[in-house]
Amino acid sequence: MKNRIEFSSDYNEGAHPKLIEKLVETNMVQTFGYGLDPYCEEAANIIRELCGNKDVDVHFIVGGTLTNLISICACLRPHQAVVAPENGHIHTMETGSIEATGHKIITLPSKEGKITAEQIDEMYEEYRTSDANVHFAQPKMVYITHPTEFGTLYKKAELRAIADVCKKHGLYLFVDGARLGYGMVAEGSDFDLKFLTECCDIFYIGGGKQGALFGEAVVIKNKIIAEDFRPIIKQRGGLLSKGRLLGIQFSELFRDGLYFELARHANKMADVIRQCLKRVGMEFFAETPTNLLFPIMPDSLYQELSNTYSLTYVKRWDKTSSVIRIATSWATTEKNVKALVGDIESTCALAA
Amino acid sequence: MKNRIEFSSDYNEGAHPKLIEKLVETNMVQTFGYGLDPYCEEAANIIRELCGNKDVDVHFIVGGTLTNLISICACLRPHQAVVAPENGHIHTMETGSIEATGHKIITLPSKEGKITAEQIDEMYEEYRTSDANVHFAQPKMVYITHPTEFGTLYKKAELRAIADVCKKHGLYLFVDGARLGYGMVAEGSDFDLKFLTECCDIFYIGGGKQGALFGEAVVIKNKIIAEDFRPIIKQRGGLLSKGRLLGIQFSELFRDGLYFELARHANKMADVIRQCLKRVGMEFFAETPTNLLFPIMPDSLYQELSNTYSLTYVKRWDKTSSVIRIATSWATTEKNVKALVGDIESTCALAA
Amino acid sequence: MKNRIEFSSDYNEGAHPKLIEKLVETNMVQTFGYGLDPYCEEAANIIRELCGNKDVDVHFIVGGTLTNLISICACLRPHQAVVAPENGHIHTMETGSIEATGHKIITLPSKEGKITAEQIDEMYEEYRTSDANVHFAQPKMVYITHPTEFGTLYKKAELRAIADVCKKHGLYLFVDGARLGYGMVAEGSDFDLKFLTECCDIFYIGGGKQGALFGEAVVIKNKIIAEDFRPIIKQRGGLLSKGRLLGIQFSELFRDGLYFELARHANKMADVIRQCLKRVGMEFFAETPTNLLFPIMPDSLYQELSNTYSLTYVKRWDKTSSVIRIATSWATTEKNVKALVGDIESTCALAA
Amino acid sequence: MKNRIEFSSDYNEGAHPKLIEKLVETNMVQTFGYGLDPYCEEAANIIRELCGNKDVDVHFIVGGTLTNLISICACLRPHQAVVAPENGHIHTMETGSIEATGHKIITLPSKEGKITAEQIDEMYEEYRTSDANVHFAQPKMVYITHPTEFGTLYKKAELRAIADVCKKHGLYLFVDGARLGYGMVAEGSDFDLKFLTECCDIFYIGGGKQGALFGEAVVIKNKIIAEDFRPIIKQRGGLLSKGRLLGIQFSELFRDGLYFELARHANKMADVIRQCLKRVGMEFFAETPTNLLFPIMPDSLYQELSNTYSLTYVKRWDKTSSVIRIATSWATTEKNVKALVGDIESTCALAA
Repeated sequence: MKNRIEFSSDYNEGAHPKLIEKLVETNMVQTFGYGLDPYCEEAANIIRELCGNKDVDVHFIVGGTLTNLISICACLRPHQAVVAPENGHIHTMETGSIEATGHKIITLPSKEGKITAEQIDEMYEEYRTSDANVHFAQPKMVYITHPTEFGTLYKKAELRAIADVCKKHGLYLFVDGARLGYGMVAEGSDFDLKFLTECCDIFYIGGGKQGALFGEAVVIKNKIIAEDFRPIIKQRGGLLSKGRLLGIQFSELFRDGLYFELARHANKMADVIRQCLKRVGMEFFAETPTNLLFPIMPDSLYQELSNTYSLTYVKRWDKTSSVIRIATSWATTEKNVKALVGDIESTCALAA
Repeated sequence: MKNRIEFSSDYNEGAHPKLIEKLVETNMVQTFGYGLDPYCEEAANIIRELCGNKDVDVHFIVGGTLTNLISICACLRPHQAVVAPENGHIHTMETGSIEATGHKIITLPSKEGKITAEQIDEMYEEYRTSDANVHFAQPKMVYITHPTEFGTLYKKAELRAIADVCKKHGLYLFVDGARLGYGMVAEGSDFDLKFLTECCDIFYIGGGKQGALFGEAVVIKNKIIAEDFRPIIKQRGGLLSKGRLLGIQFSELFRDGLYFELARHANKMADVIRQCLKRVGMEFFAETPTNLLFPIMPDSLYQELSNTYSLTYVKRWDKTSSVIRIATSWATTEKNVKALVGDIESTCALAA
Repeated sequence: MKNRIEFSSDYNEGAHPKLIEKLVETNMVQTFGYGLDPYCEEAANIIRELCGNKDVDVHFIVGGTLTNLISICACLRPHQAVVAPENGHIHTMETGSIEATGHKIITLPSKEGKITAEQIDEMYEEYRTSDANVHFAQPKMVYITHPTEFGTLYKKAELRAIADVCKKHGLYLFVDGARLGYGMVAEGSDFDLKFLTECCDIFYIGGGKQGALFGEAVVIKNKIIAEDFRPIIKQRGGLLSKGRLLGIQFSELFRDGLYFELARHANKMADVIRQCLKRVGMEFFAETPTNLLFPIMPDSLYQELSNTYSLTYVKRWDKTSSVIRIATSWATTEKNVKALVGDIESTCALAA
Repeated sequence: MKNRIEFSSDYNEGAHPKLIEKLVETNMVQTFGYGLDPYCEEAANIIRELCGNKDVDVHFIVGGTLTNLISICACLRPHQAVVAPENGHIHTMETGSIEATGHKIITLPSKEGKITAEQIDEMYEEYRTSDANVHFAQPKMVYITHPTEFGTLYKKAELRAIADVCKKHGLYLFVDGARLGYGMVAEGSDFDLKFLTECCDIFYIGGGKQGALFGEAVVIKNKIIAEDFRPIIKQRGGLLSKGRLLGIQFSELFRDGLYFELARHANKMADVIRQCLKRVGMEFFAETPTNLLFPIMPDSLYQELSNTYSLTYVKRWDKTSSVIRIATSWATTEKNVKALVGDIESTCALAA
């Protein structure tokens, strides 16, 4: 593969230099392992503060698939299922990892990656009240992503409604925040970590896609889930022996708001590309204010751009165009964005 | 619940009297356990003969859910999935039993319970050739039911095409024959056990819904699956200690064609009801020549009939009518059918 | 294998004639499936009465391995383990069925199949209080068999002590009673079903080894375990569609004390053999008052007897003798016992 | 916890400075994710060279527990078990992670962490040839660690014998090399990576305990295991999105022999402590030439040392002494060793 400019994902580089510096600085300090070190303690305290809840448990796990599968299997009895949008990451992009823990995913149709409280309510009625319900896996947890797979956002009222219906039916609410920061600083976003904590039983704040080398911070409010969470992390291989690496990175990300600053940069870079795409008349598969763009792109343009840029093919749209994903990140440079924008405009001008 | 005449399923009674007689007759004979007895050996031999293949392995398992989960988990490595119609029994009616063995079910849209070779081919291409396929559970087995959940049948050519596409892609073909007999003797059925054996890697012949107290006979042609199948049956709790009970029943069912005779009776009883439903102008959710009928019934009629008969509500069709399942079996009496038919006709006449 | 007289197990025949009669009598009665029928209800009520507790849940499951794995996986979160004697049936004779549900078995050394409250207490301390306990599967349930694999019995005080230590540490107590009846009527047994119910969170009463064709009756006192137990039975394939078969058999077994009568017969037959073995000077691997005998038998005698009788080889004892298992049951005839006793005596006289 | 000098493990610091430098240097280079980058390719090629086999597959996984569970579950059908020494890491220190993938661990008694070819041979005979083998989980893989949990080493002839008996019985041989380097450069070690590759079906080279931030390199020779290994890594959450971090570190470790140099340093540091312990008359639980020492230490000495040094309590030895673990690593300084040695000698002199 030749060297192209990456817009394929938000994990094409290492970590933000501030994190790297701190890792270098602390490299020879001795600590105990498995997350029982002062750095993890500090990071957890900062996150508790931001969540407005000193009682939540905070754990750091190596990656997103591990965090999803650990969080879900920790909550469910054998016959219980997790409910997810049909395009939820756990259903489509994690190689059956949830099923490998023994649990079914009940999928709901989604609009641009989102599901609604009403859908959950109806699903619950169908599963619990049927005479035949002994033959159905039983819903016990709802999984959503924020922002979604398509970069869209839940509004405060929508999330509250989902939390309420979950509470009503005894369902745990779990929010996958692998890209949480990009969402929280996006235009139109109307809630913060405190509100998210109020709504969720468990959620996580992604690090690996937002400036860290790797790592996700799980926040657990529900005490039933919190009990013995560490041995479950260990059992699934998610307990880093040098756990300090996670504590150090999350402390840096959250101590002075670096996390949100980096997200704002990424969204801004995405916006420059978005405006350009609109100028040249492109439509979008989903309207999104975050760092992921889903233009419906003429195949000829996609091919032309692919000589220089690495973009992600999502799916065919019609005979001559496809849905393409363009991702920016904390690491995206203005120079690269300018280049891409320039090439889009000149190619389109040529074609016109 | 008051005593109603059962048309709710094909397992509302015990076993056909001939099987009961044989169980009584052999009751005090001593045998070794776990299916290593002369009765199981005899039954296996009769079934091998009917399959036209002396090399197939035949095992007897207590019930259908166990047979499905054992057959599937015996075939798959951790990341592999089974492909099934979206309304396949393993996906909708077995409480997540397949996922509990660690495997994802990849569902395909189905027409009246059936899927096609083309669908399998396209699904395979999508899953294997994608750049992202490391993130997808990998299809390795195809599960279909014959007859399907809606009583419909695969034609010989359709089954052959499915078997061919499976072979082409290295997918195992598994046919759930919980109601196999009802299908094989139905009008329009164009293949026998020999052809089924040629097409499948593994399939089973249902006993519990076709005259036995319980029990399914698994036929395994593929030697990779056949290896060490017994310890897997045992591990999942499917190895009956008094295995002879299964051998005795299947010997009786298959020695002189009783199995097919009973299925013919059930289909005939269903046909009487079908003709009646057509006469009164009812439409069907699915056209089926077997023992399960799916009329789209006015709610008023369904309610009226429910006073006397136990039928199964499937789902709402429109504001005033629903899909209802009526099942006959080897045990359905002409008297009960006459009564039902009479009540349908008189109720409809009254309504008209 | 030639036809020998069976003393190899307690499941070499069908069912006691009274059960068979009732199955024949009810064969054509129509009932709803999955254990929701009047026979299961009746059997459950009789068992509740005998347990002295109207609040316990009673479920009927096809076989012992299924009952064990369902009961255990219903109780445990992913990182939790079940504690068992090293020779417990779930550890040695069920093909890894518990591990297949995702859980580790923590084994304790056992004396003649039994473990003590002290052992459980020490194990718990070791597992919970260690600094390293995040790396250990966590004990949450204790599994014992009564009678044990070696036919030995817990005394009332021993069981009470185990129940107390379980309560102290929040461990569920589960008693596998596959041969419960043989134990409860044995000489030296000092507790009944009421006391067992007081001590246990969950236990089961075996049918398949004590006069039924198959089937175990699970009694659940702990409400946490009881919740949603039926879908878990279904998920693992243990929910018999014609569930009535279990209800009918257990009603017959328990309505008028047949169950205990049959057990007394088996124990009496075993005692005749035991006395004979003692007369000829044989020692025993374990002293047991129930239907299983474990003589340390000279290989020459074992070989001689094996021409006529099917006994079970357990393990080598020394160069010239082995531990052999001799099982009687409800079906063992005085005639066969007389024959065996005669042959033991004459062979030994000859050897002397 | 006050700040003590760490001898508790070989993962108390970050990474060797050369690795850190390279991570800093490459931080902003853009690569594709999931291990499909030039750094991983380079590292894999260097390792293939050292293994003397260009056909082996090399994968990089985040941590040891993940590597063990992925490697084992990738090899086994549902009823199959892995055989391990009773003190093997997978059995004692990974929270039931193997059982959580559905598989039983068959344990063998071990001498100082090691098992023998003879033990494996006998175990196999017992499991496969028994009449009752349908009731046993079936051995299919042998897991050993080199060096073992107690720092001891297999000799070339012992490993060859184990490999031969595995081949004879169709068992996969898997060597957990979490501390492989420390073993390979130890006094008395008589084989290299080439020989290890010849013997094993699959093994891994630990990074996290030998100079890297984290990471293990899995080497797969057996083509059956190699097939589709990447989706299994992904399914279990072991596929790092920024996989390059592993490639960069392993390239540095192996390009110029740094890995073995660091191991030699650790062993040398351990030797200084070992000689001191011998001088003061201490005995050892296990004789080991590697970086882990297991002195049987008077409790008074252990308590005294614990004021300044973090050592690991293993288990009580007798009333007044315990088995203690002292670990050195690539990061252990001569200064700290000198301090420890001085304190041991002065405390012992005082006590004498």
